[in-house]
Amino acid sequence: MTARATDQEVCIDLGDRSYPIVIGEGLLARIAEFDLPKGHAALIVTNTTVGPLYAGALAQALASRYPQVHVLELPDGEQHKNWDSLNLIFDALLGRGSDRKTVLFALGGGVVGDITGFAAACYMRGVPFVQLPTTLLAQVDSSVGGKTAINHPLGKNMIGAFYQPQLVLCDLDTLATLPEREMSAGLAEVIKYGPIFDLDFLDWVQAHLPALRARDPQALAHAVRRSCQIKAEVVGQDERESGLRAILNFGHTFGHAIEAGLGYGEWLHGEAVGCGMVMALQLSLEMGGVDAAFVERCTRLIADAGLPTRGPALGADRYLELMRLDKKSEAGEIRFVLIDPPGRAVVRPAPDAVVRGVIARCC
Amino acid sequence: MTARATDQEVCIDLGDRSYPIVIGEGLLARIAEFDLPKGHAALIVTNTTVGPLYAGALAQALASRYPQVHVLELPDGEQHKNWDSLNLIFDALLGRGSDRKTVLFALGGGVVGDITGFAAACYMRGVPFVQLPTTLLAQVDSSVGGKTAINHPLGKNMIGAFYQPQLVLCDLDTLATLPEREMSAGLAEVIKYGPIFDLDFLDWVQAHLPALRARDPQALAHAVRRSCQIKAEVVGQDERESGLRAILNFGHTFGHAIEAGLGYGEWLHGEAVGCGMVMALQLSLEMGGVDAAFVERCTRLIADAGLPTRGPALGADRYLELMRLDKKSEAGEIRFVLIDPPGRAVVRPAPDAVVRGVIARCC
Repeated sequence: MTARATDQEVCIDLGDRSYPIVIGEGLLARIAEFDLPKGHAALIVTNTTVGPLYAGALAQALASRYPQVHVLELPDGEQHKNWDSLNLIFDALLGRGSDRKTVLFALGGGVVGDITGFAAACYMRGVPFVQLPTTLLAQVDSSVGGKTAINHPLGKNMIGAFYQPQLVLCDLDTLATLPEREMSAGLAEVIKYGPIFDLDFLDWVQAHLPALRARDPQALAHAVRRSCQIKAEVVGQDERESGLRAILNFGHTFGHAIEAGLGYGEWLHGEAVGCGMVMALQLSLEMGGVDAAFVERCTRLIADAGLPTRGPALGADRYLELMRLDKKSEAGEIRFVLIDPPGRAVVRPAPDAVVRGVIARCC
Repeated sequence: MTARATDQEVCIDLGDRSYPIVIGEGLLARIAEFDLPKGHAALIVTNTTVGPLYAGALAQALASRYPQVHVLELPDGEQHKNWDSLNLIFDALLGRGSDRKTVLFALGGGVVGDITGFAAACYMRGVPFVQLPTTLLAQVDSSVGGKTAINHPLGKNMIGAFYQPQLVLCDLDTLATLPEREMSAGLAEVIKYGPIFDLDFLDWVQAHLPALRARDPQALAHAVRRSCQIKAEVVGQDERESGLRAILNFGHTFGHAIEAGLGYGEWLHGEAVGCGMVMALQLSLEMGGVDAAFVERCTRLIADAGLPTRGPALGADRYLELMRLDKKSEAGEIRFVLIDPPGRAVVRPAPDAVVRGVIARCC
C-alpha cells in the first residue's frame, strides 16, 4: 500500500478478518495505490446524490485494477434501506453474470454502506467489499466494524450480518460537499465516544466544535481518527456484540424508536441518535450514573452541534413498544446503554415508570 | 445430552462453531433430552406438508424447554425458496417481538432447512438454530455443513450465508412418510459420496440399494451416518468452500442448470443432481478421468435408484448460459467437478465443444 505521509491508519484487529482504515485527503483518486481485493470485476454501489459527485472518477481510478468496473446508483435515504434496494444490487450482479471474484465498493453514507455490506455478505454467500464512506457519520461509525443490515417495516437494522470489509478509505475531501444537516448528524456519533469511553476526547470535541463545524481538515482528521480508534478497540474485543460492543449503541435505543416512529428518513439517523443521547443521559441521571451538570454539559454540546435535543411526541406507549423491539431487548425487557460514571457505559434495564418520566420530560 | 444406545453421532469439527449430528429413531419426540440452545422462545419453521405430520408433537416436546413455542408453515416446494418465504419468517419473528434469544427449528427438507438457516443467519444479525431434517436428502446433505440460501430468479442459492446450526437431529422415523420420489432424490446425494470420496461406500450403496429403497432402518442409518461422516470430513477442512468443499457439488453444475432451466420445482433437486452426475461422469470420461465401465456402473446405479439419467432438452446454449452463472465459475469460465480417478474429484474447466458433446449425448 502506498500512503501519503499525512494519511493516518487505524487497524481493526480481528484475526484473519483484520483490515485497515485509512484516513486522509484525496484517497478516492489514489485508490489504485492501495491493497485492494483481487477480482475480475468491481461494482461501485452508490446513491443518486453521491454518485454524480464521485463515482465517475472512482470508476476511472479502479479501471487500472479491474478489467470491468460498473456503477449502480440506489435511491438516496434511510427509507430505501430495504429489500428492494438490496435486490437492485443482486439484479445488477446476476444480470452481468458476476462471479465470486467480484469486489463491491460502497461509495456513500451509512445507508449505502450497510446495504452494500449486507449484499456482499449474501451474494454467493460472500464476496469481498471495500467501504468508501463519504459522510462524517459513516467515517466515524457505520463503515467500521462490520455491522451490515437492512431495515424491516417493524424495526431498524433487523435483517443483516456481521461481515467485515477488506479495507476502509475515509477520504476527508468528501466531507466538503456534505450538507450542514448531514455534518451535524455525523457529529452525533463523534460526540458519542466521549461519554461512553473517553472524557479527554469529550473535552477535545467541545473545544474544537467550531472548527469541526467549519470543516477544518486537521480537526476533522483528528475526530475521524480518534473515533475509529475507539471503535476499533471496542469491536476488536467483541466483534459480534456479545457484551462490550453494545455500548456503541449509546443513544440508539431511543434513537431507533424515533426513526421508526416517525418513519425512516424523516429524521436523519444521526439526528435521532443526538436526541436519543439526551434521553439516555436523562435516564442515566435518574438511575444515578451521572449528575445534572454532566447531562447539561453534554446536552448543550449536542445542541451546539446543530442536533435536536427534544424528541418527537410519539407518546410513551409508542416509545416503549418500539424500544421493546430493540435488538438488545430480552424477554420484553428493554436494555438501555447508560452512562455510569462519565467515561464508562453499562447496559442495563430501567423501570418503565422512570423511562416514561424521561420521555415526558424530553419530548 | 441423553442419547439411546442405538443413536449414532457425527461431529462437525469447526472450532467454536462445532456441532453434533445425531442419527437415530424417535429423536423428535426425545428432543427435550438433547443439548438445545438456551432461549426465551422457539419458532418451528416447517412447510404445509411436513407440519401437519410432526409439528404438533415437536411443539409439545419443546414446551418443556422454552416458555413460548410457535409454528410457522411455509408453502412447500423449491419454487418457494425465495425472499417471500424468508420474509414470512421475519414477519413472524418481528410480529411477536422475538428477541436475539429466540431459537429457530428447521423441520423439513432441504428447502425449509436452507431458508430457515438463512433467516437465522440474518435475523438481528444471527440467532441460534437447529436442523431437524425430515427427508433423506436433507439428512445426508443439505442440513449439514452450514450452507444456507434462497434462490434468485437468475440462479439457485445465489443469496445466502455460511451459518452453522447448533445441533442436527436426523430422525430416521420421518423417512417412513417420505414419498417415493423424494426418497430417490435423497439417494442421489448418497450415491454422490462414492465416486468423489469413497469407493467402498459406492460398493456398499450398490449392494444395499434394494434395502435402502425398501427403507430398511439399519441400511438407512448406515447410509445417513456414512454420508454425514464424509461431509463432516470435507466441511471440517474447508468450511467456506475455498477449495476441497467444492467436490460436494459433483453433479450440481449440470443439475442447477436443469433446475433453473425447467423452472424451480419442476424436477426435485435430487433428481437434477442424479441426472447431473450422469452428465458430469460423461464429461469425466471425455476428459480422461474415468473409463466407460465406471460411467456405465454409476449410471445404472442412478437409474436403479429411481432417478432420471437423461437431461431435459434445453439446448446446449441454454445449458452453457445457465452454468456460467454457477458459483464456481470464474471470469465466465465454467468449472466442473470431475471424477479423476474414481474415488477422487477435481474442479476443472472443460472445453465448450466437449461440454456441448456431452449435452447432446445426455439430453
